[in-house]
Amino acid sequence: MNLIVQKYGGSSISTIEKIKNVAKKIKSKKEDNYHIIVVVSAMGNTTDKLIKLSKQISPLPDKRELDVLLSIGEQKTIALLAMALKELGLDAISLTGAQARIITEGEHTNSIIKDLDKNIILEYLQEGKVVIITGFQGVNSKGDITTLGRGGSDTSAVAIAGKLNCPCEIYTDVDGIYSIDPRLYPNARQIDYISYDMVLALSTLGAKVLEKRAVQLAKQLEVPIYLASSITGNIGTTIRGAETVEESKIVGLAVDENCAIITIESTNSNKEEIMSILNLLTHLGIDINTISISNVSNGYMSMSFMCSRDDYGIVDSIEKLICVPSKDLKITKDENSMKISLIGSGINKITDYHSILLKIFYSNNLMIKHIANSETYTSYVVDKGDKNKVISDIATEFNL
Amino acid sequence: MNLIVQKYGGSSISTIEKIKNVAKKIKSKKEDNYHIIVVVSAMGNTTDKLIKLSKQISPLPDKRELDVLLSIGEQKTIALLAMALKELGLDAISLTGAQARIITEGEHTNSIIKDLDKNIILEYLQEGKVVIITGFQGVNSKGDITTLGRGGSDTSAVAIAGKLNCPCEIYTDVDGIYSIDPRLYPNARQIDYISYDMVLALSTLGAKVLEKRAVQLAKQLEVPIYLASSITGNIGTTIRGAETVEESKIVGLAVDENCAIITIESTNSNKEEIMSILNLLTHLGIDINTISISNVSNGYMSMSFMCSRDDYGIVDSIEKLICVPSKDLKITKDENSMKISLIGSGINKITDYHSILLKIFYSNNLMIKHIANSETYTSYVVDKGDKNKVISDIATEFNL
Repeated sequence: MNLIVQKYGGSSISTIEKIKNVAKKIKSKKEDNYHIIVVVSAMGNTTDKLIKLSKQISPLPDKRELDVLLSIGEQKTIALLAMALKELGLDAISLTGAQARIITEGEHTNSIIKDLDKNIILEYLQEGKVVIITGFQGVNSKGDITTLGRGGSDTSAVAIAGKLNCPCEIYTDVDGIYSIDPRLYPNARQIDYISYDMVLALSTLGAKVLEKRAVQLAKQLEVPIYLASSITGNIGTTIRGAETVEESKIVGLAVDENCAIITIESTNSNKEEIMSILNLLTHLGIDINTISISNVSNGYMSMSFMCSRDDYGIVDSIEKLICVPSKDLKITKDENSMKISLIGSGINKITDYHSILLKIFYSNNLMIKHIANSETYTSYVVDKGDKNKVISDIATEFNL
Repeated sequence: MNLIVQKYGGSSISTIEKIKNVAKKIKSKKEDNYHIIVVVSAMGNTTDKLIKLSKQISPLPDKRELDVLLSIGEQKTIALLAMALKELGLDAISLTGAQARIITEGEHTNSIIKDLDKNIILEYLQEGKVVIITGFQGVNSKGDITTLGRGGSDTSAVAIAGKLNCPCEIYTDVDGIYSIDPRLYPNARQIDYISYDMVLALSTLGAKVLEKRAVQLAKQLEVPIYLASSITGNIGTTIRGAETVEESKIVGLAVDENCAIITIESTNSNKEEIMSILNLLTHLGIDINTISISNVSNGYMSMSFMCSRDDYGIVDSIEKLICVPSKDLKITKDENSMKISLIGSGINKITDYHSILLKIFYSNNLMIKHIANSETYTSYVVDKGDKNKVISDIATEFNL
């Protein structure tokens, strides 16, 4: 059986007209002799609107009930898409997360998929039906409706493809993955094939490509992902396991301006306090790898870490949350930075890229504040400056 | 256990503010030491909007998928109401039709409730929770989401109350049942107590009181209904079984302008044709009791029946649907009529009301076109005329 999972994101189905177009795309794939499972998000910004509605009732709405509320977004889409397919003469059936037995565990609004019943899906496929499943949602062991949190619909699609052992096509409003975000650098090259690890690095370092969670699951389940636009029809990007031959290659550049360097200074510090702060940061989900600590010995401590704008709320509460009493604690936020990251397989084996980058930053008068390296990327945190010039210089040097 | 089912209709929960008010009402009932099951409709005209959306995809949307779509309306309300109750410090839990195991059978978009699992509800009640259930929807034996059609939420509430053997309060935007619609006759008297049969007669004869289906079920399950406004807080109307003492009493007056007299004439008729037309009308759900047939013997036939504006589509298709070929068939629609019905228990035992009505109609120059009688009502179809004057005359005569 020629099986495929197709996932359509909110922007691909934001209007009735777009839903009809998606139906046509599915029909054409069906005519290519595929059995198709379609996973859909909520239309456009439906989920945000529902969250806003719930906030009118409570600043912290009950999470179980928030899941009951949010799950209607995808349920609306599956029904409309099924109707649209039937209108084109295809047989289709919609299934909510609960109906497809997508069993989740963990917290409400942030559940993880534990298992799903592939037999339900296979039975409908064997009847010749296109099976349309709500992304982003499932049902827990108590029978409660649950949602999966950010990137949930992509995760649903990958999980279903993994269970059915078939590829996954994810349709969005961009043509695929580029070496650099085309909005930042119009000459950026589209990537044909890329490994899970490289996509993870790009996503982690600020490129808006795919939610990390879905990519991690795809890597784990060995699900090939084809990422493409539902609108242009251009050829997209295939994400799969790494090439078997060893190669060192710069894949792309990620730019993150949505970050700040947070510095915690204490003139009266001790080991317990440092441990307490580190524990707290880890507990709060701050990426501990970006932390640098200096001058601990003489009673003065300075601890710096990168933080995204989304985490400002957490940062603001650090002072209150620190358990060890500390009179002389000072927390500062440096927002005048951008993080520029070069991503590549085996990048640490390429010897000359540091000197090239340093030359570019210095010739653009950008002070370097922080450097981080791994096997797949190098990140420079520098002053904000002529971003486009710097990106263009780097792209030219590395042929991106 | 002091059990009660409260049902809130679309107009009572059309905004976040109204949902918060409903939550307060529920809290106050809870403080009166009640275990409460709340059944809700979709907010405002949500269902109509969703139907409109589906029509943008297909003039005749797939009914299974329409149910998947329509059911999100009530699901939205249960989540928001549960949040609102939690915000007031009450413990609450929302259940969809499927989660409450409201098992249905029959067609999609028009299913009937076969059974429901009262133990699920009772368990949550025993935990001290307010249980909030979607009206209008259930799940069939295949696990498909189903909806109940017109008046579905009232029917859900009555079915749940019946199963739990408790009373049912239905909150709407009117204060209860009046002897005459107050918009037609401002001096109308509100009714304190009324029997199921009288409400059924009022509803059947054009008074917008409660959907017949919910009342019929309440009668069958012996569920007392308290019908009241969620806004004014005025005392409403209780609907229950008939008084045990025999009494003859005029209860109210119903006026139906939303109707026409349809006449089918044929100059070339035979018994087969008449049977065929009668069968067709019955099959289409036209109330056969209102049909009068004349002049069958000499080859000429005239058949008249009342029909509501909602059924015009059916009427228009009669000609096409008639199987026996008929060259000389003529169908006319008389829309210049109104039906005025007097409803009362044992009305047929009251001797003088016909002469009073006749006098009123004639003194108002209204030609009488049709009369129908039963044990609970008498209906006069008359020319449209000075409606307010006629209603006022009748109300005065019968002290309504």
